[in-house]
Amino acid sequence: MNEELIQGLAALAVETGANVQPGQIVVVTAGLAAAPLVHAIAEHAYRRGARFVDPIYFDARVKRARIEHAAEDTLDFVPSWWVDRFLQFGAQRCARIVLHPNVPPGALAGLDPARAGRDLMPNLKENFPVINARTTNWTVLPYPTPAWAAVAYPDLDPDAGLARLWEEVAHVCRLDEPDPGAAWRERFAALADAARRVTERRFDALHFEGPGTDLTVGLLPTSSFEGGSMTTVDGIVHGPNLPTEEVATTPDPLRTEGVVRATKPLDVSGTIVRGLRVRFEGGRAVEIDADENADVLRERCARDDGASRLGEVALVDREGRIGRLGTVFCSTLLDENAASHVALGNAYASMVGEADRGRINESAIHVDFMLGADDVAVTGLTASGERVPVLRGGTWQL
Amino acid sequence: MNEELIQGLAALAVETGANVQPGQIVVVTAGLAAAPLVHAIAEHAYRRGARFVDPIYFDARVKRARIEHAAEDTLDFVPSWWVDRFLQFGAQRCARIVLHPNVPPGALAGLDPARAGRDLMPNLKENFPVINARTTNWTVLPYPTPAWAAVAYPDLDPDAGLARLWEEVAHVCRLDEPDPGAAWRERFAALADAARRVTERRFDALHFEGPGTDLTVGLLPTSSFEGGSMTTVDGIVHGPNLPTEEVATTPDPLRTEGVVRATKPLDVSGTIVRGLRVRFEGGRAVEIDADENADVLRERCARDDGASRLGEVALVDREGRIGRLGTVFCSTLLDENAASHVALGNAYASMVGEADRGRINESAIHVDFMLGADDVAVTGLTASGERVPVLRGGTWQL
Repeated sequence: MNEELIQGLAALAVETGANVQPGQIVVVTAGLAAAPLVHAIAEHAYRRGARFVDPIYFDARVKRARIEHAAEDTLDFVPSWWVDRFLQFGAQRCARIVLHPNVPPGALAGLDPARAGRDLMPNLKENFPVINARTTNWTVLPYPTPAWAAVAYPDLDPDAGLARLWEEVAHVCRLDEPDPGAAWRERFAALADAARRVTERRFDALHFEGPGTDLTVGLLPTSSFEGGSMTTVDGIVHGPNLPTEEVATTPDPLRTEGVVRATKPLDVSGTIVRGLRVRFEGGRAVEIDADENADVLRERCARDDGASRLGEVALVDREGRIGRLGTVFCSTLLDENAASHVALGNAYASMVGEADRGRINESAIHVDFMLGADDVAVTGLTASGERVPVLRGGTWQL
Repeated sequence: MNEELIQGLAALAVETGANVQPGQIVVVTAGLAAAPLVHAIAEHAYRRGARFVDPIYFDARVKRARIEHAAEDTLDFVPSWWVDRFLQFGAQRCARIVLHPNVPPGALAGLDPARAGRDLMPNLKENFPVINARTTNWTVLPYPTPAWAAVAYPDLDPDAGLARLWEEVAHVCRLDEPDPGAAWRERFAALADAARRVTERRFDALHFEGPGTDLTVGLLPTSSFEGGSMTTVDGIVHGPNLPTEEVATTPDPLRTEGVVRATKPLDVSGTIVRGLRVRFEGGRAVEIDADENADVLRERCARDDGASRLGEVALVDREGRIGRLGTVFCSTLLDENAASHVALGNAYASMVGEADRGRINESAIHVDFMLGADDVAVTGLTASGERVPVLRGGTWQL
């Protein structure tokens, strides 16, 4: 057990991530394997004056049993109390800490990907309205587990893989800095600054070019880029993702055109999709292919009207710590911060102005996939047709 | 891992205990250590046609952090979604499976027992109205864990203790019978028959006499004894406790007099009370003493008006399998079925007629404690003052 690292992650989660306030209820969502970190978080949170710490463990083995044995027409059922509870987290202004992976990557390996694609649990579509209402101070952090290490480092023996995962997670979470919280506040500021520079150009679209990728993503008139920390309606500054290395915005869901090749395998709640290719027409993903498990994503994209349109486009520079490692973590939390990416599904309302709130994408799903490393060139297109370099070789051009 | 016993317990829980019906939601409440049994239960339940299996893990380490660090005035706080969810279990006619211990015996050792006594979680006062409405088919079963084995067999080394606990749990759950479900249906019928025989006498009170115990418990005019299985309002027959060896009724909360000495240590949600003595006057526990941790029970009994009055009186004969083992499990589920006992707190409405429903005890708590083994004589007192032997040396006299 990496007791020192667990304490470091717990302090980061409570102080810099969720920024737990005295008197708050703290909801901690985790897989069973993350119990040691949940315990450390509970101690830190109670010491900081939390009113109550409520751990919610999601059991991927029970999810697997469901995909294997439950009747087909029940696979998208969600108990009402899961929804009601989540809405209360917002209504009662709770702090939320989510430990990933709560479903280990590949946990559903060998099962029918179409059936797997129908079961969104533990993700709820109510996640998005609560995030968009900015009523909870929340954070998502990684917790290394043996099952995850086995996927991330298939060539290492289990002990060495887990040790390596801890080492890399500690590094990308900046636990090796003298003051990790201060290091993150500095990085948050740098990301906010980069976001401001991209936003100021008021691009009409972004153009991504790289191996297998030639994609144009239209933006909305008020699309603004955000990065680093967020602030709740009550003024609580929190770090939604630790680590975070991206600046992101909400695109126009009607104007995505072209093809994209995912540069990394993608874990969709336990099913790993490899060699993903997607073609967009008029904003919609009209062809989804993959070397493995395309069906899980096809099923997700058939979920509702917005599920096949983009809800997010994000830029990642080479200053971050994740891309440099070269590790494919098969965890969106880490991999999405290694490379520029887009997300199918629901959009974040905070990243557009009031005027465009009615135009952003809505869906029960949100699936990120990476469309480039430093070999993908990102170019901004202005309304007048000018092409402005944004990222070249992973370096900001603005 | 005792895979065969785990499968046996899972089958017993799903088929004979909760008697899960096709299309039902199955809620499984457990400590983290019981995950292997939760997984087996999920498979059995889904194979039987469950609509959804929702595991709810309670984390005793987080409870411990709360008792240690949380502000005094927050210790009785319960999140609203815990209550709302529990009421939905009834409203949506769910099956419920509870694995004990969800808080290992002694999990709060060394903490202030008065503070521990204020935190009732994971028990909710809403448990009683839902049980009394008979809207859920529920069962409570044991699951052997290392922490529990260490308390039950302090003189054995950890591996031997856990092996012994599995052996004894398998035996008392009748997993060593060729058809455990059939064995339980037979035992349920025998208990129901004993309950009928005691009920028919329409005793005015029961008198318990044994070492340190001289207690008279008044009954209500319609108090009827129940044992074995129960039936929901929808006609689902289920076994609420596995194992069960008791016949119980709801007493008159105003008419308990005398003294009682608990014959076994008593675990109150993680705090072990040893050498408990209670004196009753006018139905109320007016003195609570113990060799260790009396405060946890004093705090519980101060919870509300009904918390210091009796809600249950139960008779256990020597035909059961638990008392014979001589093991002190420090688990109410097992120990209460080893010996006759009473419970402070909320009463079960099904065990009185309509006429007396308004007279039964109501409380947020329900704490059972054992007041005798076979050395306690139980005598029925009739309204006319006649004394009728009920149990002598653990053998029915009726």
